Amino acid sequence: MGWLRVALCQVDAVVGDLDGNVRRVLDGLERAEELDADVALFPELVVTGYPPEDLLLEPEFVAASEQALAAVAASSGECAGVVGYVADSAGLRNAAALCWRGKVRGVSVKELLPNYGVFDEQRWFVPGAGDSPVYRIGGAGVGVVICEDAWQPLGPIGRLAGAGAGIVLSCNASPYRAGAQAERQGILVQRAVESRCAIAYVNLVGGQDELVFDGGSLVIAPDGSLLASVAQFREDIVAVDVPFVGDGPEVRPGLVEVSGARHRRGGASPGTITPVLGGDAETYEALVLATRDYAEKNGFVDCVVALSGGIDSSLVAAIAVDAVGASRVHGVAMPSRFSSVTSLADATALARNLGIELIEIPIEPAHEVMLGLLAPSFDDRPPGVAEENLQARIRGTLLMALSNKFGWLVLTTGNKSETAVGYSTLYGDTAGGFAVIRDVPKLLVYTLVAYRNAQAGRDLIPEQILTKPPSAELRPDQRDEDSLPPYAVLDPILEAYVERHATVDELVAGGFDAAMVRQIFDLVDAAEYKRRQAPPGPRVTSRAFGKDRRMPITNRFRSGGPPGGRASP
Amino acid sequence: MGWLRVALCQVDAVVGDLDGNVRRVLDGLERAEELDADVALFPELVVTGYPPEDLLLEPEFVAASEQALAAVAASSGECAGVVGYVADSAGLRNAAALCWRGKVRGVSVKELLPNYGVFDEQRWFVPGAGDSPVYRIGGAGVGVVICEDAWQPLGPIGRLAGAGAGIVLSCNASPYRAGAQAERQGILVQRAVESRCAIAYVNLVGGQDELVFDGGSLVIAPDGSLLASVAQFREDIVAVDVPFVGDGPEVRPGLVEVSGARHRRGGASPGTITPVLGGDAETYEALVLATRDYAEKNGFVDCVVALSGGIDSSLVAAIAVDAVGASRVHGVAMPSRFSSVTSLADATALARNLGIELIEIPIEPAHEVMLGLLAPSFDDRPPGVAEENLQARIRGTLLMALSNKFGWLVLTTGNKSETAVGYSTLYGDTAGGFAVIRDVPKLLVYTLVAYRNAQAGRDLIPEQILTKPPSAELRPDQRDEDSLPPYAVLDPILEAYVERHATVDELVAGGFDAAMVRQIFDLVDAAEYKRRQAPPGPRVTSRAFGKDRRMPITNRFRSGGPPGGRASP
Repeated sequence: MGWLRVALCQVDAVVGDLDGNVRRVLDGLERAEELDADVALFPELVVTGYPPEDLLLEPEFVAASEQALAAVAASSGECAGVVGYVADSAGLRNAAALCWRGKVRGVSVKELLPNYGVFDEQRWFVPGAGDSPVYRIGGAGVGVVICEDAWQPLGPIGRLAGAGAGIVLSCNASPYRAGAQAERQGILVQRAVESRCAIAYVNLVGGQDELVFDGGSLVIAPDGSLLASVAQFREDIVAVDVPFVGDGPEVRPGLVEVSGARHRRGGASPGTITPVLGGDAETYEALVLATRDYAEKNGFVDCVVALSGGIDSSLVAAIAVDAVGASRVHGVAMPSRFSSVTSLADATALARNLGIELIEIPIEPAHEVMLGLLAPSFDDRPPGVAEENLQARIRGTLLMALSNKFGWLVLTTGNKSETAVGYSTLYGDTAGGFAVIRDVPKLLVYTLVAYRNAQAGRDLIPEQILTKPPSAELRPDQRDEDSLPPYAVLDPILEAYVERHATVDELVAGGFDAAMVRQIFDLVDAAEYKRRQAPPGPRVTSRAFGKDRRMPITNRFRSGGPPGGRASP
Repeated sequence: MGWLRVALCQVDAVVGDLDGNVRRVLDGLERAEELDADVALFPELVVTGYPPEDLLLEPEFVAASEQALAAVAASSGECAGVVGYVADSAGLRNAAALCWRGKVRGVSVKELLPNYGVFDEQRWFVPGAGDSPVYRIGGAGVGVVICEDAWQPLGPIGRLAGAGAGIVLSCNASPYRAGAQAERQGILVQRAVESRCAIAYVNLVGGQDELVFDGGSLVIAPDGSLLASVAQFREDIVAVDVPFVGDGPEVRPGLVEVSGARHRRGGASPGTITPVLGGDAETYEALVLATRDYAEKNGFVDCVVALSGGIDSSLVAAIAVDAVGASRVHGVAMPSRFSSVTSLADATALARNLGIELIEIPIEPAHEVMLGLLAPSFDDRPPGVAEENLQARIRGTLLMALSNKFGWLVLTTGNKSETAVGYSTLYGDTAGGFAVIRDVPKLLVYTLVAYRNAQAGRDLIPEQILTKPPSAELRPDQRDEDSLPPYAVLDPILEAYVERHATVDELVAGGFDAAMVRQIFDLVDAAEYKRRQAPPGPRVTSRAFGKDRRMPITNRFRSGGPPGGRASP
């Protein structure tokens, strides 16, 4: 048994930043050489960033990807680099080249192209033909696979093992969702054991619009044991001595010879295992990284959050502070005639705890004037949703004015429960650039606040914000529970429908009230038009709104059939 | 040579309206029997509507599709019906069943699944295995293909012809874009000639979110000549006597026998050809149908449009009137301190010409109050974009208040040129439910207005609206040309970049100024975040924003390289 030193280069490649990504790769190769690594392994499509989406339809972008790869190859030295890029070869290919001593030595092409969930790879790519090379590096047989390729039993990894690979290098851009890391590790253990290969798995890290990549790169031994893992949610380059079974392949035709003479035997260093964060910590870190990267990659220095004194905006403000620092976060309190006496006090206490600026703009003068402007049209009709939304839209308008004047990124504060049922005002509280918690259900909002307070060792988010009943405060004594079931009832129903495709009938069979379930499903269906105009926010659950759930707006389908039962034609 | 009477059932199936779609099919079958047709042909996925998108991931929806097909089959009589539905058979299939005398007689499955442009069919469907049956109907050999299947030379149609089909029935949901009908006809002529089959092609008609289906169903003879065509942009059921070469297949194993004995020879009626509208008429009708269907399918009775006195809002108002009727369209004029003296007069003249209500709400009181609320934060900074956008957002807020109070659908008025370069205010003029002309470039706005005026035989849209220079009127004496090149320069650049993937270098080589082209490309790239929050609007060009062009928001790629040339790493 020999081993190979593999540098897991868990970098935050930026979509479209080809020059920057080339620098990231060359820096990684340099660090890998310092670590005396034989191979440096980078994430999927590292030179373009992931997912490049329809940039792939621009020929100039594809040419730039190939130029970037050539630049990396030309600068490669003694440590081989496995570098993901877009290859233009009888169609576009999601590829990874092995670069060594100034040249590309071979190219592996992704064979299994995911086209479900948040993935659209069949829109752009042609699959590999299954003829990726096996390299001989330091005496070891080494194959390269890309992301989804590792997910098929006896698939590409099995074939590479059969062709002499004892170590498989896996380039990935696998987005975060709760539980993803455990699932990945389980899959890789299966592949390692069935193929008797060690697997070095490098994942992308960083936020990209609706996705956040969690890193968590790892190495699995041929017996399925975890040899090493890298921290989640941050960049790192870690060298791991990766063992392989047997003596490695003999030199033979079809095998690509790379530093073949440099055998490593005995004396392998044990790898370091970084525990998986899991649970609330993991979700919280995902939200922080997603927010930081959205701001920084889009050129924002400061963020602004409307602070209502409620728990959603408090959580968003705390995340913003952890993402970009308190001095770069601005709170805005915009009380109305319906704001409770405690709301402003709570917002003030929160801002003080977080150490952020608080701007106060009472909206009453604008509210009154606009009601007056509308009065001739409204003509003594009783007040309702129009008047309620008016206040939220005045707030959205003021917040956007601050954003326009100072270049601040507006973070919206709607949670997943509200987003699901449309309990929000379009162009009001939904107005902004990044929807930090739009995939966080309300009950999880509470949990994350409790987690953050526990982590701080104090009530960073004041206790009274956690205990008061949720309210939009758009009419006197309004409570969320006037319009919606309690979140302890609502959230499980939403999770069942949105994440698990449950039907009205299934939920009713599970003991929920039929009329209530039907009402909630109808609210979710009817709010699609609002979600379509909402800003992007990071996915953290198993199924988010946005590119993960592509429902038509115009849609007459209703689970459980139309009211009165499904009519026969 | 014999013939078969085929009823082209060009219906407006509604996504998710399974009961309604079953009724549409049964009504079509009844009409087809009245017309003494042998076969009634319906559009692709007629029982679910197209595209059902992620409804396809809901098992209840798939089951409902199969139930709907069973209901149609049970009611089918002497006239066979070719009915598109979703089949659940080792994965989901985009299928069309032939129903006759109470039963399903065979199922054809789509083989070529488009996954480009606005299409995502590989997200949901498994392709057919190429074993669709050949039926014998009235002595003719008949095969069925679905949409994309007709686009491959010697593909599914060639195989069906080889297996005895003399007539191919083609079910389609092919969305409109300029020139689509000519392209379709050209493709079908090729298929007919190469296979020696007649092709009866039925297309869906109606609006669905970002798509509008134009109908234009047609029949091509085996020699490639056009036998009959149906009008575009409206429902119709037309019977055509479709000839086939030879005597039709003998009864043999593998051939599905359907009304085999009912030979038709001689006496075929000539078909009626409805000329393709083409040009501006076609685009205009597409916009009208898209607007009418978005409103009606989403339950809106009335529409509301902000009338600035400019040409964009004038065109949208005219389209709205043609879509839902003048009594159901409400204009709102919201002059500000910067509105020119003629703006309100022009809006008033337009409303009078169109016969629509005009509500007048001067925004000055709200404008002044909100500037006052912001003054402590803005702190004597010079006025700029923040103050400009404020006015647009006050208008958006007032318009949405009217929408909330009266249930009116807000139609936004941004054209494609503005949408491309981000010359719009998010939550201001982009606020609304349907963006009627978001795929219409500014120069085409002028053309369409001229077309509509010519059609009316008078200046329905007053002459002065066509001749005044475009202005957002958000600061004194503002003109679009202060910020942008003249539209005669801008539009061709945008068309080249957005629709044809042109590069900065190519446009500069074509004689455009380098700095200007680069600025425009940068504006387009930077406005992606605004477009992501814009309401849906119908595609009419070869490539629209929205699902047709899926660019990342976070994106550092710049055509022509970064300023100063592409840096070497």
